[in-house]
Amino acid sequence: MASPSVLTPQSEDFPKWYQDIVAKAEMADNGPVRGTMVIRPYGYAIWERIQASIDERIKRTGAQNAYFPLFIPESYLSKESEHIEGFSPELAVVTHAGGEELAEPIVVRPTSETVIGEFMAKWIQSYRDLPLLLNQWANVVRWELRPRLFLRSSEFLWQEGHTAHASAEDASAYAMRIHLQVYNDFLEKVLAVPTFLGIKPPSERFAGATNTMTCEGMMRDGKALQMATSHELGQNFARAFDIYYQSEEGQAELCFTTSWGASTRLVGGLIMAHGDDNGLVLPPAVAPWVVVVIAVREDEEVLAACQQLNEVLSSQGLRTQIDDGRRGSFGRRVTDWEMKGVPLRIEVGPRDLAQGLVTVVRRDTGEKFPVALTEVVDLVESLVGQIQDDMYAAATAFRDERTKDVNSLDEAILTAQSGFARLAWDLVGENGEARLKAEAMTVRCLQRADGAIPDNELEEGLVAIIAKSY
Amino acid sequence: MASPSVLTPQSEDFPKWYQDIVAKAEMADNGPVRGTMVIRPYGYAIWERIQASIDERIKRTGAQNAYFPLFIPESYLSKESEHIEGFSPELAVVTHAGGEELAEPIVVRPTSETVIGEFMAKWIQSYRDLPLLLNQWANVVRWELRPRLFLRSSEFLWQEGHTAHASAEDASAYAMRIHLQVYNDFLEKVLAVPTFLGIKPPSERFAGATNTMTCEGMMRDGKALQMATSHELGQNFARAFDIYYQSEEGQAELCFTTSWGASTRLVGGLIMAHGDDNGLVLPPAVAPWVVVVIAVREDEEVLAACQQLNEVLSSQGLRTQIDDGRRGSFGRRVTDWEMKGVPLRIEVGPRDLAQGLVTVVRRDTGEKFPVALTEVVDLVESLVGQIQDDMYAAATAFRDERTKDVNSLDEAILTAQSGFARLAWDLVGENGEARLKAEAMTVRCLQRADGAIPDNELEEGLVAIIAKSY
Repeated sequence: MASPSVLTPQSEDFPKWYQDIVAKAEMADNGPVRGTMVIRPYGYAIWERIQASIDERIKRTGAQNAYFPLFIPESYLSKESEHIEGFSPELAVVTHAGGEELAEPIVVRPTSETVIGEFMAKWIQSYRDLPLLLNQWANVVRWELRPRLFLRSSEFLWQEGHTAHASAEDASAYAMRIHLQVYNDFLEKVLAVPTFLGIKPPSERFAGATNTMTCEGMMRDGKALQMATSHELGQNFARAFDIYYQSEEGQAELCFTTSWGASTRLVGGLIMAHGDDNGLVLPPAVAPWVVVVIAVREDEEVLAACQQLNEVLSSQGLRTQIDDGRRGSFGRRVTDWEMKGVPLRIEVGPRDLAQGLVTVVRRDTGEKFPVALTEVVDLVESLVGQIQDDMYAAATAFRDERTKDVNSLDEAILTAQSGFARLAWDLVGENGEARLKAEAMTVRCLQRADGAIPDNELEEGLVAIIAKSY
Repeated sequence: MASPSVLTPQSEDFPKWYQDIVAKAEMADNGPVRGTMVIRPYGYAIWERIQASIDERIKRTGAQNAYFPLFIPESYLSKESEHIEGFSPELAVVTHAGGEELAEPIVVRPTSETVIGEFMAKWIQSYRDLPLLLNQWANVVRWELRPRLFLRSSEFLWQEGHTAHASAEDASAYAMRIHLQVYNDFLEKVLAVPTFLGIKPPSERFAGATNTMTCEGMMRDGKALQMATSHELGQNFARAFDIYYQSEEGQAELCFTTSWGASTRLVGGLIMAHGDDNGLVLPPAVAPWVVVVIAVREDEEVLAACQQLNEVLSSQGLRTQIDDGRRGSFGRRVTDWEMKGVPLRIEVGPRDLAQGLVTVVRRDTGEKFPVALTEVVDLVESLVGQIQDDMYAAATAFRDERTKDVNSLDEAILTAQSGFARLAWDLVGENGEARLKAEAMTVRCLQRADGAIPDNELEEGLVAIIAKSY
């Protein structure tokens, strides 16, 4: 666009750019209570697509959805002390209900883990009940002093999966399945965000976990965002909640459990992984509308052509929207649609129309295609897949450009100012982690040299991915 | 079944029957905090189908989903005092968060109405922004002293729609569209529950509403359950929240608003409208599994036949499940599947199989069909639609049998001990409503004599539907 940008440029102030885009693309607003979030229809439509895509994949692994209560007795949160200590300043506590003070205060769930643990113990009797594969979509609350829409809010939406297995091998294989077939597959194919897959170093592991696997994406400022994590909890969690099963031999045995989650943070990651100075750039798979058909100006013939195009496209299963030209100048409307990141726009003007032509414009590359009306549908259909692939390729190229193999912690700290550093894990060590922390950096994950996911942090030859993060 | 019933019979103790069925069909459990509910996977799978069916219909009316915060500043709940007075003993109040006492207490939303009102006022500028059609799926909290799973729980899941319009006519037409094309269509076609559609008398209207429309279903004990309601709020709500728009003529005008909701109560209604002494009876449209293929006993050939049948059926888009015969006796397993209300079971036994036969059994009527393996799919496909229709017809016949035209309040009180009474609204009056209340009865809705929905309670010749209710 020739018109001046309506967003603070990314290069000038990335956090301000993010704040601007969330407001101007009508993604979300701050709620009246500090740290809470109103997800506006456009932002929520994106979340619905994210949710449906992840849910479908979760169900394919055999897990079932259930719903556990918002309220948890305060006493529950001391059951698994190692885990909960981290939360207590984050808790919102209900002390009054039904018009009187409660005998025991109630906590608004920061996770449903404790209640799910209790019910797993109740529902699991014998080896025949295993594996028990549960998932929940819900809101959770963790008090935030420095909230940021989608990235850190006092209330957020997420899914949390909790599973129980008869053996460590089965638990481990299932956690890996979630990591690869649910999260990574979704991130690649739907969000078009390439990630580094690996395990967290012990210092960054989920409390109580024996292993935490993570998908780390790179944002446009070179920082990392943890997109989703999967935890193997060994028998720690089962021990805290008495989750036993009777084996085929009639022995009482402790279960092995896993947990895994992803949240509305993914919307923040989507914005920051693909957005540019003109606004959102949405991959077709997650866009509420894949195509907007724009009347260059208010005109009966133009509008009729728009409506016809819209009908044909939606009969092909494409999610389309019409801009009938009634709301502001053409330039202003184009700016708005670019802000919303709609993957393709079809501009319909009276002069082109007289020649049987329209113009198709890609949001991701800005390319324009003058095309005969008779060929629009074929072009759009082929572009939809193309854009999805190209966006993934572009994000991968961006990430690889900003990811450097380094040979010392000093070099890593320099590189991680604006990207990811790959340093031998041997060269980090405990002191190294402390030094990184002082620079607001962390080891995001550990990988084998070839990028594969290691079994544990003690393997030889591991590489640490070092970055700043959200 | 010849075996003794595992449920308390309906005729003996209906509330106990309900409690038994919720537990034994693995629909829900009580949560650890009084009045809260754990929705188990089977119950939640039903809720997911309800939710998807309603959501699809809501979107067809043009409404968009959004998400508003769980927490509301306490001060908000005094904004629209007429409405909120009803809630205050029902509120759960957060007084501590972030490790300290809050300056202003926060309320856990009993509805998002107040926050949605605030944001509507912010988002609506001109007539071009109207109608604004919003819906939200969320959990809400209303403290319950006598909780009952699905029917009355301190936390429940629901959708609440809130819309703003430029004219009373548009608001009214939209509320009617929700009433008929969303709620009633869903109740008829998915839940197979016939309802009386009508308006609430002024005494039963939602506070602040100028008109409340309701769908009243009859449960198997003859009591009414309000399945969903739609409210016209006139300009009352807009006035309380300053929801103005600029008209085409440039004048600031107050909007007309509507609100409408349905909740996890629908699951309770589904149970009580169709269930029998053997358990749930689910209409195919809402059943998590439409068919269960049961191995009469553990046997390789039988299991192979079950798996093949299962594959063929699911390739036809039917939701199926296999019972491989490993868990208990055939009789016990059949009892369990009847308890879960699966519409069709296919029993596969070695003797039948040797003759190329299986037995198909309908849950709703108990009818058994010995059928050749080659014809199973056709039979199942035709039965699915048949069962859905028959269940609606059976529920309608049951309701009509228990609905009587009466000529006096005394007669109405007698009839409403076990069904619905239809009495001229003129013969009720204020005193009549008080007398009904003393009998734990209410006017569930007002209809025209032909069953049509009246414009208001002042029309001549209206009929009051009188019943006990949940």
